[in-house]
Amino acid sequence: MNKPASDSGGLVRFRVDLAYDGTDFAGWAKQPGLRTVEGDLVRMFEKVFGKSKTDFDMRVAGRTDSGVHAKHQVCHLDIPQKRLSRIGRDPLNAFRLNTLIADDLIILDVDQITSDFDARFSAVGRRYRYTIADPKFKKDPMMVRYTLTHKRLLDVELMNSAAKKLIGLKDFAAFCRPRAGASTIRNLTIFEVLRQEDGLITIDIHADAFCHNMIRSLVGSIIAVADGRLSIQDLVTVQETGKRANKFKTIDAKGLSLESIDYPEPAEYAKQAILNRVMRETSDNSV
Amino acid sequence: MNKPASDSGGLVRFRVDLAYDGTDFAGWAKQPGLRTVEGDLVRMFEKVFGKSKTDFDMRVAGRTDSGVHAKHQVCHLDIPQKRLSRIGRDPLNAFRLNTLIADDLIILDVDQITSDFDARFSAVGRRYRYTIADPKFKKDPMMVRYTLTHKRLLDVELMNSAAKKLIGLKDFAAFCRPRAGASTIRNLTIFEVLRQEDGLITIDIHADAFCHNMIRSLVGSIIAVADGRLSIQDLVTVQETGKRANKFKTIDAKGLSLESIDYPEPAEYAKQAILNRVMRETSDNSV
Repeated sequence: MNKPASDSGGLVRFRVDLAYDGTDFAGWAKQPGLRTVEGDLVRMFEKVFGKSKTDFDMRVAGRTDSGVHAKHQVCHLDIPQKRLSRIGRDPLNAFRLNTLIADDLIILDVDQITSDFDARFSAVGRRYRYTIADPKFKKDPMMVRYTLTHKRLLDVELMNSAAKKLIGLKDFAAFCRPRAGASTIRNLTIFEVLRQEDGLITIDIHADAFCHNMIRSLVGSIIAVADGRLSIQDLVTVQETGKRANKFKTIDAKGLSLESIDYPEPAEYAKQAILNRVMRETSDNSV
Repeated sequence: MNKPASDSGGLVRFRVDLAYDGTDFAGWAKQPGLRTVEGDLVRMFEKVFGKSKTDFDMRVAGRTDSGVHAKHQVCHLDIPQKRLSRIGRDPLNAFRLNTLIADDLIILDVDQITSDFDARFSAVGRRYRYTIADPKFKKDPMMVRYTLTHKRLLDVELMNSAAKKLIGLKDFAAFCRPRAGASTIRNLTIFEVLRQEDGLITIDIHADAFCHNMIRSLVGSIIAVADGRLSIQDLVTVQETGKRANKFKTIDAKGLSLESIDYPEPAEYAKQAILNRVMRETSDNSV
């Protein structure tokens, strides 16, 4: 399965590990007239390799929304062998690339990889963290960009009890922005609320994948429980019936950060990609 | 000593505890055409109490430079009793004030206080922290605004050995921007370098007060030692002779944060203020 990347039509695949402060980005996906992470990355690679009509066929593991941060994101791209040869040895080291981009975007690592690897479709899991500052946290201006401020004290135990009810392989239609033909069944493996020593509340969320808006809706739902606007039984009913109505809202993006992407052993890259494509590609609803 | 604040010429003194992300401020002190912390605070109080020709005689404990952050800063101001009465009960609660300012400036607390208290001259100590990310720290875009990036690995033990030589009641002329007639003798009580679990290097610095540029010069000097540009013996000579030449530089402001201000018991406010004024007021060189 692990054919050398350069076999595939003269293209060499690279895996890029990166991080960003999402505050000043209009999300991942390139959009005309807006600053986006993909847009900045494409421009960076074009500085090294010249213009690309296909944006180097870049694909990302977690297509973060506007304002969402990433401590560890993964994407891949394909560079024509010809262009690579023109540049010479080791053209893509992280240190050099970081000199070509703004400070709020950081290349952690860049490595040539087999073309079996697909940043999005080979991924088997995504971990996100949502951070909330309620009155137990001493206000800190250096955390304002990365936390949701909540005025009332939140009951972490109660939030955890609510969160536990949603863990498992379930239909999360009530938590997703609907798209025609898209499956909303996901395997939510971690949904855990913790009060940290400094008073911050962190919510760790892990699943095979998430549909659009799902994480911020999940967090919104357990905040609604903590605020007494929704009972745990009502929350379960919302999940089971797939009908949200106005029970809770999709919460602010700034508290959300993509923490890590799970990949299988290299021998499984291609198999996993085929499995995931079969499950989701027609819908393009998975992030 | 503790006369009620409202006795002093119809003015009521308030102590304000606050915090800020210094990135987008041109330092503490009000300057025409620039965004400063004092400028934003005065505008905030003017929204509540109306225009003030004297900027409410605001005075601050640590006059931070452009780009320096504060996790806990203290200032005081005097509001005319007449204006206060017009506003009604509890006009100065932190929650309300925070709705009048930008997110990167936070009022932690505001309280009426005896006019014996002087935010600057009653203070007996200031604690600052400088944070450095060297290659042992996994790059984090959410820390970029608050850490100095250093490309080479830093030897924390060596930095500590250098720092220890500077602790004590000494003349720090070599570390201060000179001002005519200003004393540069300070009592440096803590100067300690630590490698945190996540790999960040933190440098804690405490003194009765600091002269201008002193903290960033102190940090610059022990980085010079770690980088092999300066021996510890040379550093001691620089301190003793008061001659810096180009041995080290005043390091970037963005890694620096004011952490706390020490005040004595209320009965000592006035005495301490008199002592400090005698020592430093003519020079106005102490922050």
